Amino acid sequence: MARIDGRTADQLRPVTLTRKWLDHAEGSVLVEFGKTRVLCAASVTEGVPRWRKGSGLGWVSAEYAMLPRSTNTRSDRESVKGRIGGRTHEISRLIGRSLRAVIDYKALGENTILLDCDVLQADGGTRTAAITGAYVALADAVSFLRDRKALKGEPLTGSVSAVSVGIIDGAPMLDLCYEEDVRAETDMNLVLTGDGKFIEVQGTAEGAPFDRDELDALLELGSAGCADLTKLQLESLS
Amino acid sequence: MARIDGRTADQLRPVTLTRKWLDHAEGSVLVEFGKTRVLCAASVTEGVPRWRKGSGLGWVSAEYAMLPRSTNTRSDRESVKGRIGGRTHEISRLIGRSLRAVIDYKALGENTILLDCDVLQADGGTRTAAITGAYVALADAVSFLRDRKALKGEPLTGSVSAVSVGIIDGAPMLDLCYEEDVRAETDMNLVLTGDGKFIEVQGTAEGAPFDRDELDALLELGSAGCADLTKLQLESLS
Amino acid sequence: MARIDGRTADQLRPVTLTRKWLDHAEGSVLVEFGKTRVLCAASVTEGVPRWRKGSGLGWVSAEYAMLPRSTNTRSDRESVKGRIGGRTHEISRLIGRSLRAVIDYKALGENTILLDCDVLQADGGTRTAAITGAYVALADAVSFLRDRKALKGEPLTGSVSAVSVGIIDGAPMLDLCYEEDVRAETDMNLVLTGDGKFIEVQGTAEGAPFDRDELDALLELGSAGCADLTKLQLESLS
Amino acid sequence: MARIDGRTADQLRPVTLTRKWLDHAEGSVLVEFGKTRVLCAASVTEGVPRWRKGSGLGWVSAEYAMLPRSTNTRSDRESVKGRIGGRTHEISRLIGRSLRAVIDYKALGENTILLDCDVLQADGGTRTAAITGAYVALADAVSFLRDRKALKGEPLTGSVSAVSVGIIDGAPMLDLCYEEDVRAETDMNLVLTGDGKFIEVQGTAEGAPFDRDELDALLELGSAGCADLTKLQLESLS
Amino acid sequence: MARIDGRTADQLRPVTLTRKWLDHAEGSVLVEFGKTRVLCAASVTEGVPRWRKGSGLGWVSAEYAMLPRSTNTRSDRESVKGRIGGRTHEISRLIGRSLRAVIDYKALGENTILLDCDVLQADGGTRTAAITGAYVALADAVSFLRDRKALKGEPLTGSVSAVSVGIIDGAPMLDLCYEEDVRAETDMNLVLTGDGKFIEVQGTAEGAPFDRDELDALLELGSAGCADLTKLQLESLS
Amino acid sequence: MARIDGRTADQLRPVTLTRKWLDHAEGSVLVEFGKTRVLCAASVTEGVPRWRKGSGLGWVSAEYAMLPRSTNTRSDRESVKGRIGGRTHEISRLIGRSLRAVIDYKALGENTILLDCDVLQADGGTRTAAITGAYVALADAVSFLRDRKALKGEPLTGSVSAVSVGIIDGAPMLDLCYEEDVRAETDMNLVLTGDGKFIEVQGTAEGAPFDRDELDALLELGSAGCADLTKLQLESLS
Repeated sequence: MARIDGRTADQLRPVTLTRKWLDHAEGSVLVEFGKTRVLCAASVTEGVPRWRKGSGLGWVSAEYAMLPRSTNTRSDRESVKGRIGGRTHEISRLIGRSLRAVIDYKALGENTILLDCDVLQADGGTRTAAITGAYVALADAVSFLRDRKALKGEPLTGSVSAVSVGIIDGAPMLDLCYEEDVRAETDMNLVLTGDGKFIEVQGTAEGAPFDRDELDALLELGSAGCADLTKLQLESLS
Repeated sequence: MARIDGRTADQLRPVTLTRKWLDHAEGSVLVEFGKTRVLCAASVTEGVPRWRKGSGLGWVSAEYAMLPRSTNTRSDRESVKGRIGGRTHEISRLIGRSLRAVIDYKALGENTILLDCDVLQADGGTRTAAITGAYVALADAVSFLRDRKALKGEPLTGSVSAVSVGIIDGAPMLDLCYEEDVRAETDMNLVLTGDGKFIEVQGTAEGAPFDRDELDALLELGSAGCADLTKLQLESLS
Repeated sequence: MARIDGRTADQLRPVTLTRKWLDHAEGSVLVEFGKTRVLCAASVTEGVPRWRKGSGLGWVSAEYAMLPRSTNTRSDRESVKGRIGGRTHEISRLIGRSLRAVIDYKALGENTILLDCDVLQADGGTRTAAITGAYVALADAVSFLRDRKALKGEPLTGSVSAVSVGIIDGAPMLDLCYEEDVRAETDMNLVLTGDGKFIEVQGTAEGAPFDRDELDALLELGSAGCADLTKLQLESLS
Repeated sequence: MARIDGRTADQLRPVTLTRKWLDHAEGSVLVEFGKTRVLCAASVTEGVPRWRKGSGLGWVSAEYAMLPRSTNTRSDRESVKGRIGGRTHEISRLIGRSLRAVIDYKALGENTILLDCDVLQADGGTRTAAITGAYVALADAVSFLRDRKALKGEPLTGSVSAVSVGIIDGAPMLDLCYEEDVRAETDMNLVLTGDGKFIEVQGTAEGAPFDRDELDALLELGSAGCADLTKLQLESLS
Repeated sequence: MARIDGRTADQLRPVTLTRKWLDHAEGSVLVEFGKTRVLCAASVTEGVPRWRKGSGLGWVSAEYAMLPRSTNTRSDRESVKGRIGGRTHEISRLIGRSLRAVIDYKALGENTILLDCDVLQADGGTRTAAITGAYVALADAVSFLRDRKALKGEPLTGSVSAVSVGIIDGAPMLDLCYEEDVRAETDMNLVLTGDGKFIEVQGTAEGAPFDRDELDALLELGSAGCADLTKLQLESLS
Repeated sequence: MARIDGRTADQLRPVTLTRKWLDHAEGSVLVEFGKTRVLCAASVTEGVPRWRKGSGLGWVSAEYAMLPRSTNTRSDRESVKGRIGGRTHEISRLIGRSLRAVIDYKALGENTILLDCDVLQADGGTRTAAITGAYVALADAVSFLRDRKALKGEPLTGSVSAVSVGIIDGAPMLDLCYEEDVRAETDMNLVLTGDGKFIEVQGTAEGAPFDRDELDALLELGSAGCADLTKLQLESLS
């Protein structure tokens, strides 16, 4: 079955990772999954949040947001509305959790790395692009700390990438663009380590509930996609 | 391996569903999973939100919250802080999505059912208890509409229940209490239909990433737990 | 003149005080005045607010809120609106002030007791039920501190109860339910100590202004009602 | 017993009511109770709030606020804090309720009068000065509507004034200034109609609970004070 | 060309500066530019904001606000809206910046002076009246500190006044009232020191863009107006 | 006198205007003034804000914001703080006002164009870069409407560009980078039309007040800079 943009069911969109896109940030990546474009900036600060002081442990956190005209029709700014929406909260928490899964807090020492993931343009899969790009920015921020001899060891215990999968007209597909995402009966986001273990599995029946066979097919497809992304991350960082 | 409260790995805590706990609400259930106690109230209103008017379709939504002293140490009220936290948003969205998966909007007609799930006491699994109880309150609210001949057909296409599963010291366990939840390496919430299909699969590696075998074991355990909850829901409603 | 529910003018609704309704809180009471049901939880914390530190004095405070579907028609959550309404503020302040009237801060030592009064179901008189129940939860929290030898003396200088009175069709009546409250020309809330002194007198002409004779009749009726409530509190605590 | 400023126990501070202090407002009064200075502005708008439209009835409401440096030490602006405090809410509601007690909504027609009471300088009794001044501004706003033939009858069914009373060192006193207010064991605000009936009775035991005799003495003292204020209002308006 | 109120193009409205209008504030001025009436209160506090502690330097800041009925039609309170509007922010910042231009922070020592400028009645030029009045209140607050020997030297390096100028029907005019302001094609606010130097120049083309000749004419007119205001300030302070 | 980056006093930084940087927006420009990088997106919507409906007139507005890590040290998000700061408000208003100065509302018809100016990287002059880029995005959005035959005439009455000027160590300089901006005694932002008329003149004495000669020098320098920017805008659009 042909996809909207001619890809096969198990094919990623063209993915690019442009490192050092910003001059000030300790790590920064402009990540693109097709037309989806997310700017990931890693900010290093000495010290940790108050509740963690004196523990000897570091901290990694993330904030996700969309520019108002990243989408097809403009959305109001959350700063203007005075509130952060549920979806924004949810994705910020997901990105932070995903990155923390490969962090050794002790080795990081009492340093904080905050990842800002701002969607400049959205065409589906913004959260998975954000995680994939944020990992690379995080790795650069860790290098920055290593160069300054501010670490207590190697804080990265692995790498992280993420991809979306979904079922469209009964067929499992990898890395959905916006138009596909809207049509998907089931939508799943997978976050995996570079060695193929699961960090997050979030599947939602948008249309009809899905059975175990469909679930298994999605897990296979997403695992393969993350393996491809892992390679691209390694190339970018080498 | 013995659990804190003497249960076997695949055993639910004592579950009770007390219907009609409130006098005013069109449906209401006090659901208890062990010490976890959630008050689910279904409110029926004629009409639908503005963006849905004139569509002939109904709407179902949910709001989740915790009383400040439902937890071991008191939390500040979100109304006092002036903001709803990310976790609250996330769970409210999850409950709404889960219930909508078994709703035929057309049959519901232009009516709205809002489920308020307020945690009176928390001991782990508040979101899964909330979904399990909210389904029963929803069913009662649908009956209320049926009695008033305000429906266009049968809006419930199935039933919904939810349970948490997790891996503790390497062993998969069902329906974690708070103390177990804190110790779990992996934490997963499963929402299933009464006929055993998946609505939501949300697995998170809190400690170490998990492999495919562990994931499969959790899916089995949770599916069996939801089957037990489905029976309790049916008994309660009959 | 017969009342809606068959009571005499000077009769309270059935009042129950269920202690230890919660497992975590240092004191907790589910108080019921007829269909009005308020969950009062007392939380003890070592230390006092910043402005009181080092004074050697304790602090007692209260927060009141209503669940969205405690009322006949659902109200929006104050957490969702992002603001606490004037009525909520006013009642929270009233409960705190009423309880502090029987507290010896010095004997309490630098400890804080916070009373959460959450209305699970509302049928008139929620603030007076809250005060009456909160006193019992407070007494249990004081016992908790006494057992831990964390007090400097006996912090309770008396007991507190509260009741509403009003004039309906020209006749003074005790403990109004919601339907009566709506019809009352004058509405008064009285907070008294166990030995019959006044802590708060709040009378409002909803319809016509009231004269001195009417005011006197209301004060008599309410004082008698509070004396009855004091007995119930003592029984519950013994 | 001599008072701080040489008054007798039953004596008001010098009271002035300066009408038409503003050029734009339909009614305006600068009211002074000693050093307490409140600017009351009445704004007339055609129409009523949405929930009252089509009822043929008018509406009267009030907002109270303090300038940041009206007090001895500067307070932060509520606009800067982004929240209105409980006290402000409470007093705004009290003023509105007090004025509405002498309004015939039907005679007012579908017009709204909003009273802004801004405390320019505070020295105790700001809420009672505000009510006393606001009544005069309200009367002027009603005259404005009468001149435009926008009324359906006479909307004012009486006049309203207010005064504080308190017990200091065991003695009841009228119209407390700030220094007295701080020392008062019991503090009561009384709102009366021009013909001596009660609209609001709000008594609070700040120190020790008060008995019935003390309560009676305060009611006598306040009633006499309001009678004096009523005379001043009539003079001002004639 | 005759102006609305009979003034010549280069004539100020009647200006009055009433010092010590408040009893509590360390400096206070009721400033009037025609019907525009602004209450300026200077509050002195020992110490400086956190970011400036230990620097040995003082701080001066300002807050501007309008009473809801200062204008022809009532505006909603920013405290009620829960947000400060852009215009309010902008003017508060302008006033603070203008006053700081004549402050020697070192001579002020670690003291803070906060200027509250509350518009009681608005008829154009509220921000320039506020700056002109605030300078006088500031000078009184400095005297207060001088009397207490709390200064390290003379903190005032000069005086500050401000005026609006504009082009109406092609003609430059000084000190616009509201009706003129609405009609102006170009609107400019000038803040000058007592010796005729510029602190702020803010010109905006409301209607048509302006050329260099018009700009020069406005600068001349405003400079002369500020010289007049400087004289009035000096007289008031002597 | 050599500048930090080797420019002469009257030289702009390298300026680039990359049109159509976004796929969805009706007009979009990535504008760069040296390291300052602002993404300007123009969103066209049919219809106008409520207060303008039925007038036959269009509307143009702008919103400015900075990404948290656009600056040297990370700033908190305004959406997280729940409030928009004064500076953001001020600049948003300035951009909107500047663009509206070249708009014929009647020719625009009842259409709205909203300019989002998001600073991706900041190195001084973000507001002037934003205005300069936003004009180009606006021109593209107008072309979009023209192509759809949705205009009533030619809405652009001219072009707009903006530049900062300042006095550093006594010497006037054009287009300050951040390091220069911090050191400037006087800071001025100029907004001019393509034919050299003034839309906005905003000069502020950061250090010492400035005299008329200095003001004149800054006006000359800025006018020449805007003429250069106008040329770049025309080239980009042709």
